[in-house]
Amino acid sequence: DHVIICGYGTKGRSAVSALLENGLDRSRIVVVERSAAALRQATSAGLVAIEGSATRSSVLNEAHVRTAKAVIIATDSDDASVLVALTVRQLTAGQVRIIAAAREAENAPLLKQSGAHHVIVSSATAGRLLGLSTSAPPLIDVVEDLLTPGQGMALAMRSAERDEVGRSPRELDSLVIALVRRGKVVTLADRAGAVIETGDMLVHVRDDRPQSATTA
Amino acid sequence: DHVIICGYGTKGRSAVSALLENGLDRSRIVVVERSAAALRQATSAGLVAIEGSATRSSVLNEAHVRTAKAVIIATDSDDASVLVALTVRQLTAGQVRIIAAAREAENAPLLKQSGAHHVIVSSATAGRLLGLSTSAPPLIDVVEDLLTPGQGMALAMRSAERDEVGRSPRELDSLVIALVRRGKVVTLADRAGAVIETGDMLVHVRDDRPQSATTA
Ligand SMILES: [Ca+2]
Ligand SMILES: [Ca+2]
Repeated sequence: DHVIICGYGTKGRSAVSALLENGLDRSRIVVVERSAAALRQATSAGLVAIEGSATRSSVLNEAHVRTAKAVIIATDSDDASVLVALTVRQLTAGQVRIIAAAREAENAPLLKQSGAHHVIVSSATAGRLLGLSTSAPPLIDVVEDLLTPGQGMALAMRSAERDEVGRSPRELDSLVIALVRRGKVVTLADRAGAVIETGDMLVHVRDDRPQSATTA
Repeated sequence: DHVIICGYGTKGRSAVSALLENGLDRSRIVVVERSAAALRQATSAGLVAIEGSATRSSVLNEAHVRTAKAVIIATDSDDASVLVALTVRQLTAGQVRIIAAAREAENAPLLKQSGAHHVIVSSATAGRLLGLSTSAPPLIDVVEDLLTPGQGMALAMRSAERDEVGRSPRELDSLVIALVRRGKVVTLADRAGAVIETGDMLVHVRDDRPQSATTA
């Protein structure tokens, strides 16, 4: 039940930070990378590091790809990402979740056809943040805080407790912004009357400062 | 009081979407772009489009850079972005807000030294989203919804109303997740006792569906 990160550049390292922040243990993160320097960084960060190209079956097998929880494709080129997705899908018969980054939006459909379950288009995301950042007050700071682990606030998800069923999400101590009900996101922005049902997941904004600061 | 977008690729187009969604009028968006095909797209989207390189003073002057509210640098290469930032800063004496995208984190300091007030590192943002997307429930869907205009929900900011001063942000109809007080973000995740002060800005989650759907 480990997560494999293909590529340990800026994207791969940012993905690792987010995984750690969300509670994944370091020992469950396996980095596949060709550069010796990046491999040393991964090892000294306490991660399992495997040398080689993630486009090769032997390397992915060494990373135990068949038993992985997910494979994150964070290589530098969209061409390489497509090859990695195809190889992972072939080795795992589509049973392991594949998430890939694409530099350009035009490559997202190709990555999905090649086996990626979810594609993040880095230029599109960056563009949205650029658009947000022109507004005079620091709305962009809030968005970046939500995306950056270890400071300010964070988005998190948890199951509804039994004693929360039947209550309004707005009256809980948790700062709930949305429900996930049967796999779908239910926004609360216009739903003052929403009531929590059994099986709901609560998406909430939580304190994201290091534990020592929070408990002090 | 217009916004200049340098580059109308995926990043530039996503920035424009975010600006329009945040209420900026099309006539106040000026696109600077070298590609004829991209220029035609900008024009048919109702934007003002200027042909040429944003590294050239004459082109930036044609875009009335000195009276712009902000310049968004959304070119394809970090090298070009640095040149644009330097030119804009020189023409505007640092008086116009410059926001730039960097492909790689290592180029962010250089962009700031060259005049960018805020830098979005696309690979870092994509990496964070990759890390979020491995969790079984769709937390990533919520984050992408918050960043994508025109559907689901959106983050927005507004001034505190006079009759909201002294009240808890949690008891308002608006779904407030943070305050901006004297330019600093105050998270509400751990602040059940926070009280709204005069001059606060409220960061809230609002309904983001097209008007017709909302009012129906
Ligand atoms: Ca944070
Ligand atoms: Ca949205």
